[in-house]
Amino acid sequence: MAKEETYILPLLESYPMVGGDGPHSYAKNSTFQKKIVDCAKEMVTEGIVEKLDLQSMGFDNSCTFRIADLGSSVGPNTFIAVQNIIEAVEQKYQAENKDPSTIEFQVFFNDLDNNDFNTLFRTLPPTRKYFAAGVPGSFHNRFFPKSSLHIVHCSNTLHWLSKIPDEIVDGKSPAWNKGSIHCTGFVKEVVEAYSAQFKNDMDSFFNARAKELVPGGLMLILISTVPDGVPASKTFEGMHYDFLGSCLHDLAKMGLISEEKVDSFNFSLYFPFYGEFEALMRRNEHFTMERMDKFTNPTRKMVASAEFYSSHMRAVFEGLVKEHFGDQFVEPIFNYYSTKLEENIGSILNAEIHDRIELLILLKRNITPIITTTWILT
Amino acid sequence: MAKEETYILPLLESYPMVGGDGPHSYAKNSTFQKKIVDCAKEMVTEGIVEKLDLQSMGFDNSCTFRIADLGSSVGPNTFIAVQNIIEAVEQKYQAENKDPSTIEFQVFFNDLDNNDFNTLFRTLPPTRKYFAAGVPGSFHNRFFPKSSLHIVHCSNTLHWLSKIPDEIVDGKSPAWNKGSIHCTGFVKEVVEAYSAQFKNDMDSFFNARAKELVPGGLMLILISTVPDGVPASKTFEGMHYDFLGSCLHDLAKMGLISEEKVDSFNFSLYFPFYGEFEALMRRNEHFTMERMDKFTNPTRKMVASAEFYSSHMRAVFEGLVKEHFGDQFVEPIFNYYSTKLEENIGSILNAEIHDRIELLILLKRNITPIITTTWILT
Repeated sequence: MAKEETYILPLLESYPMVGGDGPHSYAKNSTFQKKIVDCAKEMVTEGIVEKLDLQSMGFDNSCTFRIADLGSSVGPNTFIAVQNIIEAVEQKYQAENKDPSTIEFQVFFNDLDNNDFNTLFRTLPPTRKYFAAGVPGSFHNRFFPKSSLHIVHCSNTLHWLSKIPDEIVDGKSPAWNKGSIHCTGFVKEVVEAYSAQFKNDMDSFFNARAKELVPGGLMLILISTVPDGVPASKTFEGMHYDFLGSCLHDLAKMGLISEEKVDSFNFSLYFPFYGEFEALMRRNEHFTMERMDKFTNPTRKMVASAEFYSSHMRAVFEGLVKEHFGDQFVEPIFNYYSTKLEENIGSILNAEIHDRIELLILLKRNITPIITTTWILT
Repeated sequence: MAKEETYILPLLESYPMVGGDGPHSYAKNSTFQKKIVDCAKEMVTEGIVEKLDLQSMGFDNSCTFRIADLGSSVGPNTFIAVQNIIEAVEQKYQAENKDPSTIEFQVFFNDLDNNDFNTLFRTLPPTRKYFAAGVPGSFHNRFFPKSSLHIVHCSNTLHWLSKIPDEIVDGKSPAWNKGSIHCTGFVKEVVEAYSAQFKNDMDSFFNARAKELVPGGLMLILISTVPDGVPASKTFEGMHYDFLGSCLHDLAKMGLISEEKVDSFNFSLYFPFYGEFEALMRRNEHFTMERMDKFTNPTRKMVASAEFYSSHMRAVFEGLVKEHFGDQFVEPIFNYYSTKLEENIGSILNAEIHDRIELLILLKRNITPIITTTWILT
């Protein structure tokens, strides 16, 4: 057998969204993310109807149409996104004078091993017309057989890194991110370290998806990017991250948590610059960019309560905070944060910020020979 | 489109095994079930090597080999069973002078929607060489696309009914099962009602699997049957069910639970008679029985502690007890049960009983035209 490639499953630093459907759950606190899916609906439909080429994919009625949503979390946004895709495929089928009710869809909902799949499965839409499956694993690795998917959807997910870059937490490195908990955009070395990690992760992502998608298969990516030249801290989300960081410093000063712990705390996420991301898309050799749409998430302009914002932050970051500071600090940290946010919400909402640029990118898997894969598990 | 069949997803009365990996979990209390998988290993290997016909299934290197384990629960027995199947397929491949490392396996672990898939996913063997997915749903329904599976494995699962037969809990019916919590085998009408439900469920099961397996695909069924003419209460498990039933009656007499509640409590399971099951296998039109092996589960002969037996009973039946009597009665019921079992373990282990007959059946999907399916969701 030609061993063209060695495949290694690395250990990843990764934390799922808050599970269940309680008040702090992601299921109840993902309005921002839902709005992105809603905004993208029309573009997704147009993109699929225009670019899906069933014939070149070798798809006929005897096939199952397989869709994967990566980073599904616990729902419910994933169910809406998947439904939009299915309707678009059916529309395309109809446009070709075929009967869409003859297609059988299988949908794979993917997220990390420690995602709350129980909630995802229990809340699957009862009126769904597809066969559902859950697939655990990080999207930086492979988790589907070769050429087994027709459409991959990945919304609001790619900004999660496989790890925090080493130099970010290295006191001797010029990229040491002391005093901040994310890539603010103010220190060149920090930006470079985060950006390099993101690039590596995107390479792994493209390599894995290139094997899993059928030649001619489509990949839909929804991602939030920072306008070129704008520091992340000057965006709505960056400002919120800085605010949470300031709360951690307050709590360290009060002696609740150690200063060292705060200094070594960093988000394992990076929102790339617009131009940086576009270049990454264009230079990859497995996919051709068929379409790129820009839009602004209108949720970012809405005026909501401090409680709304703090619930959203907690649904996403509770896992990270728990892992780093310990279970017993989750409540005090988020309680302090929400109280301080309540007091400062006015100035935060009035701050001058730059809109992030939401991108919907449609990629098509190039038609090349299938690569054989060998596994080495570590 | 030729609408050859209307497909309806019914609501099912079904309860999963105890999740997690705590002291009462199925993961820690499934030795009986594991022993069955272990005993069957050699027969599974032989059966697959003898009967798997890759060519007639249209399988080549570009395909993914898809295996489904139905009723996986939370593991770990399912992982052993799946590994045995994969090794057998590899052995078959080698026997045909092909390189087994070129096959990509995808394994679907199925159980009810409310099964603890989180535990299943977190305990997946780190050295597995297959792509894993979880599929929620009752095995009485379809949950896979047409002709998408090559091997289906179903161990120690088919005795779970989709519902308790209506007449069993109908005070006016001659099949009212007052005074007992399962099909003891002593009342003809009760046996007939349970048996009819089992037959219906098996029909649904065969119809669903016939669509999901590729023509030529294999189905491995492991099931425990009662020797013809022996009342279920005269088997090891039946005796244990009667003992739990007697505890419920004691607690009703003590006033902890109502007598009416005890009378209306029945296990939604039925272990068919050997001859009855064999006939069901032979008369179904979608599959041909290629092999049937009988064996006895040696675990049933071992002398274990009362605690061992009560933990096993609880891991399986806690969900049913909770659903019927209410959450607050779970502890008192199982505590009383384990104390009384401790006192009576000697006489239980010395009772004269009949061995159940464990069957491993290998079926092959007949090669017939593919049926088109239409969905009606209720």
